[in-house]
Amino acid sequence: MTQVSTAQAASTAQLASTAKALKCKECGAEYELKAQHVCELCFGPLEVKYDFSSLRFSVTRESIQAGPNSIWRYRQFLPVATDNYIDVGTGMTPLVRSQRLARRLGLKKLYIKNDAVNMPTLSFKDRVVSVALSRARELGFTTVSCASTGNLANSTAAIAAHAGLDCCVFIPSDLEAGKVLGSLIYSPTLMAVHGNYDQVNRLCSEVANTHGWGFVNINLRPYYSEGSKTLGYEVAEQLGWELPDHIVAPLASGSLFTKIYKGFKEFVEVGLVEDKKVRFSGAQAEGCSPIAEAFREKRDFIKPVKPNTIAKSIAIGNPADGVYAVDIANKTNGNIESVTDAEIIEGIKLLAETEGIFTETAGGTTVAVLKKLVEAGKIDPDETTVVYITGNGLKTQEAVQGYIGEPFTIEAKLDSFEQALERSRTLDRLEWQQVLV
Amino acid sequence: MTQVSTAQAASTAQLASTAKALKCKECGAEYELKAQHVCELCFGPLEVKYDFSSLRFSVTRESIQAGPNSIWRYRQFLPVATDNYIDVGTGMTPLVRSQRLARRLGLKKLYIKNDAVNMPTLSFKDRVVSVALSRARELGFTTVSCASTGNLANSTAAIAAHAGLDCCVFIPSDLEAGKVLGSLIYSPTLMAVHGNYDQVNRLCSEVANTHGWGFVNINLRPYYSEGSKTLGYEVAEQLGWELPDHIVAPLASGSLFTKIYKGFKEFVEVGLVEDKKVRFSGAQAEGCSPIAEAFREKRDFIKPVKPNTIAKSIAIGNPADGVYAVDIANKTNGNIESVTDAEIIEGIKLLAETEGIFTETAGGTTVAVLKKLVEAGKIDPDETTVVYITGNGLKTQEAVQGYIGEPFTIEAKLDSFEQALERSRTLDRLEWQQVLV
Ligand SMILES: [Zn+2]
Ligand SMILES: [Zn+2]
Repeated sequence: MTQVSTAQAASTAQLASTAKALKCKECGAEYELKAQHVCELCFGPLEVKYDFSSLRFSVTRESIQAGPNSIWRYRQFLPVATDNYIDVGTGMTPLVRSQRLARRLGLKKLYIKNDAVNMPTLSFKDRVVSVALSRARELGFTTVSCASTGNLANSTAAIAAHAGLDCCVFIPSDLEAGKVLGSLIYSPTLMAVHGNYDQVNRLCSEVANTHGWGFVNINLRPYYSEGSKTLGYEVAEQLGWELPDHIVAPLASGSLFTKIYKGFKEFVEVGLVEDKKVRFSGAQAEGCSPIAEAFREKRDFIKPVKPNTIAKSIAIGNPADGVYAVDIANKTNGNIESVTDAEIIEGIKLLAETEGIFTETAGGTTVAVLKKLVEAGKIDPDETTVVYITGNGLKTQEAVQGYIGEPFTIEAKLDSFEQALERSRTLDRLEWQQVLV
Repeated sequence: MTQVSTAQAASTAQLASTAKALKCKECGAEYELKAQHVCELCFGPLEVKYDFSSLRFSVTRESIQAGPNSIWRYRQFLPVATDNYIDVGTGMTPLVRSQRLARRLGLKKLYIKNDAVNMPTLSFKDRVVSVALSRARELGFTTVSCASTGNLANSTAAIAAHAGLDCCVFIPSDLEAGKVLGSLIYSPTLMAVHGNYDQVNRLCSEVANTHGWGFVNINLRPYYSEGSKTLGYEVAEQLGWELPDHIVAPLASGSLFTKIYKGFKEFVEVGLVEDKKVRFSGAQAEGCSPIAEAFREKRDFIKPVKPNTIAKSIAIGNPADGVYAVDIANKTNGNIESVTDAEIIEGIKLLAETEGIFTETAGGTTVAVLKKLVEAGKIDPDETTVVYITGNGLKTQEAVQGYIGEPFTIEAKLDSFEQALERSRTLDRLEWQQVLV
């Protein structure tokens, strides 16, 4: 993939790129495909504009299936100019048909899109970073960077290492140990900032102005965010080239949510799937729920909040795409809900115990919101529902420690085992009695 | 997948199953396909015997590619009778073409098979457990169990949770925190045994005799171990239906190694790939290297050792398939090497820094042995070499803590950042000077 000769690269550059311009989401002004994320006229966010007209005939279900087993099977829909993209096997994570969680909740057709096993760093961020760093390299950047709540730092550090790019990542200093170590292992320069994510983000905007670095979620944000569309494409393909009826996804900045929506729309546009009304529901932690609040209060603007929740990876108090997320939930007849930290822990345990998937706090939030929506009658049991699990529980072990019981410590002898087994059965019975009382 | 009606299941049972008997690897005696792992005549290990003659025509590259994106695309080669297998998306992990590690080592065609992102629990054990529990369910077991160094317990607990089977897992009491929590989250009964793996294993053999449980790596071992063949199949398929020239894999019990070998042979037998001499090299930690010692001393028997290494997941002092591993290394002109704990940590860091893949101690062992073999001229730079990474570094964080540097802690201000950046550059220069001295 990275072995294309220069001549080939030049000739495929045009074929591969359907991206035409950066376009302001507010005023429609257009810009060259450079490292820029804000409109010079109205300060609105920029988004990649494509011309997919050529794809209606050249891209088929079969041509996609014949592509790599990664997000790059959808490369014609992604903002890279050449085939010299960075493919570390990101994407094509399992879509699991849920049996036991579905039964527990009373849903008939529930699927789990599991990015907790995404390559290389076990979160959906590997998708956006693969795209951002591919574009960063095309644009000539040699140092890449990001402001992160943890997962993004892991992913940027790992994929930069793979691509041989210099890397400097910024995180709040109070992150979970697994997320700090999960960046350091790749030897980036790691800046732990006293402050919350929004303060880290502001500092990074300043650094982006003074250093010529590619910040994946600042000056490269229009490219970066497009990577999330693949979570829409893959679900459509994995459902047998059909759209689901309802999706539930976590909301941090709101970008993921809007890009899944865009992904579905694009597949309809080029004729890969039939059009369908898909309901979009979003999940936030109560300790940082500015988007859920705006939805509840029927506002079209976000009131920034100061985060206070164990769900650190989605704790963005001033979410850049919050208003767009509210808009999508409204127009698709979806919902945006929030849950407490206690419910988040229960969500993590529920998913683990019923499906054998260990997710981090963001995934616990999403599962807890799924449950809440079902109980409130806001998800129909007959809807084909997809819940997006975006990160791995091994990175936020602190969150569940103290809530998951302990091993029985025994001697390597049969009678020691039998005694412990008897104790465990007594405990099980007690638990059941408590449930029944 | 688990939705097949009874009538369908009955009719596909014969189609799907090419497994014919359990056969003793030593004396050749045959047994029914039940839960049994030892020959009643000679106490040799039992292995599944197949009749693949029907597959030469019915199974093609295309029919496999049209199957699920998991190990179950190879179901005709696996010892299950029906299509009612447990598919949680296990397998089809990325095979990454290495650029930077290859260059660092001076290899031209190096690939990394990355089971550190295997579904659901981030190690190759998900393969063997998926097969073992599918068969356990067919055989009527309702409680499943295992003796484990950590990864197997994670996998058994997770997949049992998914399948709704009761689960009791046994581990040594001194395991890494991530591996303990990575089992508890799925709510199994977890027995932490004072003693090393070999003592845990002996206790489990006793329990298997007194309780009617399915122990994946004891009475179900013949089925369980077949799951590792998929690591051979997938590499062959991902290389474009070709075998590599050389593979390097970790050695614990030796089972993985022998089953990759078996997988290659079977693909040749049914005509899916052309025959080729593949060299098999194995990796052990010096603190537990009974197989490497037997190889070095040209013995055809294993002298059990007491493990003492940070590579706990491969620390089996009395490896059941050790002699078969030695035999394969010998007859394929491969090697078996061991490395120190310090080299293991360097191996973990080397893979992370060059490829962006964070592996556990077993993977560090394998990378370190790869490096050692290259430096000793025992791997040819022109060989297509595949290195097997079998588990994720987030589960053994203790092993690298203290060896990976620290973040720069700063205030959320530009000048605080600039000072830290200057410090980091000075440190980089010092490091380079040390290298040059
Ligand atoms: Zn504008
Ligand atoms: Zn025998």
